[in-house]
Amino acid sequence: MTRVVIIGGGAAGASAAARARRLDPNAEITMVEAGSMITHAPCGIPYAVGGVVSDYRNLMTYTPEEFEKERNVKVLVNTKAVDVDPDKRVVVISRGNSTEKLRWDKLIVATGAKPLVPKIPGVDLSGILTVRLPDDVPVLKSELESATTVGIVGGGYIGVEMAEALLHLGKKAILFEMMDRLLPAALDADMATILADEMRKKGVELHLGEKVVEFRGSGGKISAVVTEKGEYKVDKVIMAVGVKPDVDLALKAGAKLGETGAVAVNEYMETSATDVYAAGDVAEKVHRLTGRKVWIPLAPSANKEGQVAGGNAVKGRTLKFPGVVGTAVTKFFDLYIARTGLSEEEAQRLGIKYEKAVIRARTKAQYYPGYAPVHVKMLADSSGRILGVQVLGWDHIVAAYADIAAVAIERGMTIEDLFFADIGYMPATAPVWHPLIVAARVLSKGRL
Amino acid sequence: MTRVVIIGGGAAGASAAARARRLDPNAEITMVEAGSMITHAPCGIPYAVGGVVSDYRNLMTYTPEEFEKERNVKVLVNTKAVDVDPDKRVVVISRGNSTEKLRWDKLIVATGAKPLVPKIPGVDLSGILTVRLPDDVPVLKSELESATTVGIVGGGYIGVEMAEALLHLGKKAILFEMMDRLLPAALDADMATILADEMRKKGVELHLGEKVVEFRGSGGKISAVVTEKGEYKVDKVIMAVGVKPDVDLALKAGAKLGETGAVAVNEYMETSATDVYAAGDVAEKVHRLTGRKVWIPLAPSANKEGQVAGGNAVKGRTLKFPGVVGTAVTKFFDLYIARTGLSEEEAQRLGIKYEKAVIRARTKAQYYPGYAPVHVKMLADSSGRILGVQVLGWDHIVAAYADIAAVAIERGMTIEDLFFADIGYMPATAPVWHPLIVAARVLSKGRL
Repeated sequence: MTRVVIIGGGAAGASAAARARRLDPNAEITMVEAGSMITHAPCGIPYAVGGVVSDYRNLMTYTPEEFEKERNVKVLVNTKAVDVDPDKRVVVISRGNSTEKLRWDKLIVATGAKPLVPKIPGVDLSGILTVRLPDDVPVLKSELESATTVGIVGGGYIGVEMAEALLHLGKKAILFEMMDRLLPAALDADMATILADEMRKKGVELHLGEKVVEFRGSGGKISAVVTEKGEYKVDKVIMAVGVKPDVDLALKAGAKLGETGAVAVNEYMETSATDVYAAGDVAEKVHRLTGRKVWIPLAPSANKEGQVAGGNAVKGRTLKFPGVVGTAVTKFFDLYIARTGLSEEEAQRLGIKYEKAVIRARTKAQYYPGYAPVHVKMLADSSGRILGVQVLGWDHIVAAYADIAAVAIERGMTIEDLFFADIGYMPATAPVWHPLIVAARVLSKGRL
Repeated sequence: MTRVVIIGGGAAGASAAARARRLDPNAEITMVEAGSMITHAPCGIPYAVGGVVSDYRNLMTYTPEEFEKERNVKVLVNTKAVDVDPDKRVVVISRGNSTEKLRWDKLIVATGAKPLVPKIPGVDLSGILTVRLPDDVPVLKSELESATTVGIVGGGYIGVEMAEALLHLGKKAILFEMMDRLLPAALDADMATILADEMRKKGVELHLGEKVVEFRGSGGKISAVVTEKGEYKVDKVIMAVGVKPDVDLALKAGAKLGETGAVAVNEYMETSATDVYAAGDVAEKVHRLTGRKVWIPLAPSANKEGQVAGGNAVKGRTLKFPGVVGTAVTKFFDLYIARTGLSEEEAQRLGIKYEKAVIRARTKAQYYPGYAPVHVKMLADSSGRILGVQVLGWDHIVAAYADIAAVAIERGMTIEDLFFADIGYMPATAPVWHPLIVAARVLSKGRL
C-alpha cells in the first residue's frame, strides 16, 4: 500500500490527491494544508473582496469534509508542514501546539507561490496587505472597510484586479508600477496603454514608471507611499509586486531548483529527489514554443500538473505534462485582457526575430447591435509561425481569442494556417472576418 | 491587361474582386450582381426582418459606388448574367431591357446558393416566402406585417433564426421539420433536443418528424400547411427547407459539377473549365478531417475562397484554399449553438468508429455570478483524435469553443492534446477546468 503525502490543498494538491485516489483505490493519501480551505480559488479573491462574489467561502470547490468523504483522502487543514526528511521519508507537521510525523512513500510538494514583499523601508507597518489565499478575504475586507484611499503597489494581474475591487468598494485607488506599463509580464506597451486608459477613465490614479522607495507611517500604521517622484497619502496599501514559488519544503525534501528559481521538474513532474514530485505554482514549467524553462504560476496548469503528479506518484510514469504557452486572462470591469505565446519584449529577450501586426476590430458583425471594440496584436517569426497574441476587448468572448491562438501556437501554426482556419461566424458572435484572421492577414503584409 | 469578370457580388465575388485588384493594379475587373446590393450579408437577414438590425441596408459593407471607388472595380448591379460562352470568352449580361457582352480572360463564378423549393402541391401560392438576399428584407417585412400565424418549413439554420425573428415581431410561429430533430445537418438528436426545448419554451410550436405534403390556399393565397399528421392554419409560410448551389452559369461556362452537386474545384479554386474559377456557396469544398468533398455553404469560407480565386485569377497559383472542418454557429435568442467536425450521424455514415462524451458545465467559475450552463458533446476516433464538437450554451462565448475545437481538429489533436492545451482561465471568462477540457477528460474514460 503506497503512502502518498501531498503538501498543499490548492489546485495542484487537490488534483494530485483526486488523481492518485482514482488510479489507486488502496493508496493511503494524506493532504496537508496550512490554511482552513482546500480546493480554493485564489483567482477569485479580488471579486470576493470587491463584493462581486458575496461569500468568500464559495471560493472553494469542496470543504475538507466533502473532499475526505468523496475522494477518500485524509485532509489535514490548519496544519503546517514544517520539515521534510527525505532519507527517513517523513514530513513533520504542526497543528496547534503539537507536531507529528507523517511517513510517505511518495511525496508531492504543491506549496504554491507566495507574495513577494520587497525590502522597502516601512514595509512592516500595519495596514500593508498582501493577497494570497481565500482565507485572506475577511482580513482584507475588514482592513479596507475604514479606508478612503488605498495604494496598490504593483500593476500586474493582482494589482489590476484589486483596483477594480477597490472601486467596487467605493475607495480611491492609487496604483504604483515601477515599469513603464501595466501587466508588464503579459503585455507590450502599445497594448498595455489601452488598459491604462480604461483604468484612468474609471478613476484609478496610475503612477507608471514610478518606483516606491518608502512607506511612511504614524503610530505604526501606514499613512503614505513615497516614490522617487512624490509622497501620496494612503490609508492602506495592497502589496502586489509579484509572487515567488514557495520552495522551502521542496528544498528540505532534497529537490533542486531550476534556473527560474522554482522547483525543477521533468515532464512527469518528478523533482531531482527520489519519489518527490512537485506540481503547481511551486514548480517550473516548459514553454512549448521556445522549449525553455519558465515560471508562470497559473491555476489551469497547476490543476493539470497536479493530475500528472498524482497519477504518476501511484502508477509510475503514466502521463506527461507538456508545458504551457503562456496563456493568461484578466479583466478590468468590462475590459477583458488575454494573451498567449510571446510578447515583443519576450521575443526580443530571446533573440527571436519577429514581425508584428496590431489591429482594431469589432466582436460582432458591424451591423449587429452590441458589438464591442477589440484590439489584437499578433507576432510571427520569419517563417510565418505565430509567436504570440495579445487581445484587449470590451466583451468576454475576446478571452477565447487567446485560447484559439494558444492552440494554434502549440500546433506550430503559421499566419497562413490561421488565416484559413475554419473559425465560425454568425453576426451575433463574430465578424465574418474574425479579428484573429484579420490580424493574420495584416501580418502577412499582402501575402494573404 | 487581364480582363476579369466576376459573376456575383456577395462574399466570394467581392473578396475575389478586392484580391484581384490588390495583386494586379492593371487588371480590368468587372463584378456583375443580379440584385441591388453587393458585399451583402445574408446571415443578417433574420435580424433585419426581426428588427434587431434596424435597417437592412446595413447588411452591406460597401455600396456599389464605394466599392467602385475604393477598389477600382467596375460594379454592375441589377444586372443578370444570362449566358456564358467559354469558347469566345464572353458573358452575356442583361440590364433592364438591353443585353450586352463582357469579354473575359479570367472568369470567376460566385453565384452562391439559392433556396430549395420542393415540388409540393400548392407551393406556388402567394405568401410562401423564401430567404436569400438582403434585398428580400423589405418584401419579407411587408409580407409578414399583416400575418398572425406564420409557418416555417424546415428546421435548419434559416428556419431556427427566422423563428426568432417571428417572435420578435410578435407572430405565432409553427415550425415543421421532416427529420426528427432541429438542425439535422449540424447536431445530433441529443444536442438538438436542447434547442427544441428552448424554442418551445419561447413559444415556437414545433412539429418534428412531420413532413409537409401540401399547401392549401384560398383566393391564390396560402391559408394552411398540411402535413402527414394534420392541417395547420397559417397566414404566411417561410420556406426554409435548404439551399442548393446556383450552378447554371458555371455549367454554361463549361465547369463540371462534383459529387455533391456543387461546382468541382481544386485547391486553387480552378474549375474543370480553363480560366474559369468558382468560389463561395456555388463551389464544393474539401473536408479537412475526412479529405472528402462536401458542400457546406457559409460566409467565412466563401470570403476566403473568393480571395484565393481572385488572387490566382490574376497571378496564377499563388494561394491554396485548404478546405473546411464544418464549423458553424447560430443562435436562438440567448442560446448559442456551435459545431465543428463530424457529428455522430456523419461519422456513422462515413463508417468512422468513434467514442463520445456529453457533458454539462458552466461558462464561468462556479462562484462567479452570471455563469451560464453549457452542453458540450465531443467525439474522438479510436486513436483519440478529436472528430467533432457540438456546443449549446446560454452565453455567446460558447461559439468560440467550436473555434478552439476547429483549430484542434484541423491540426489533428487528440483528446490528450486538448486536455493539456494551454486554454486560459479567469473566473469571469471560464471555469478553471474549461468545458472543452472536461469533455476531453470524460472522453478519455479515465486515462486523463
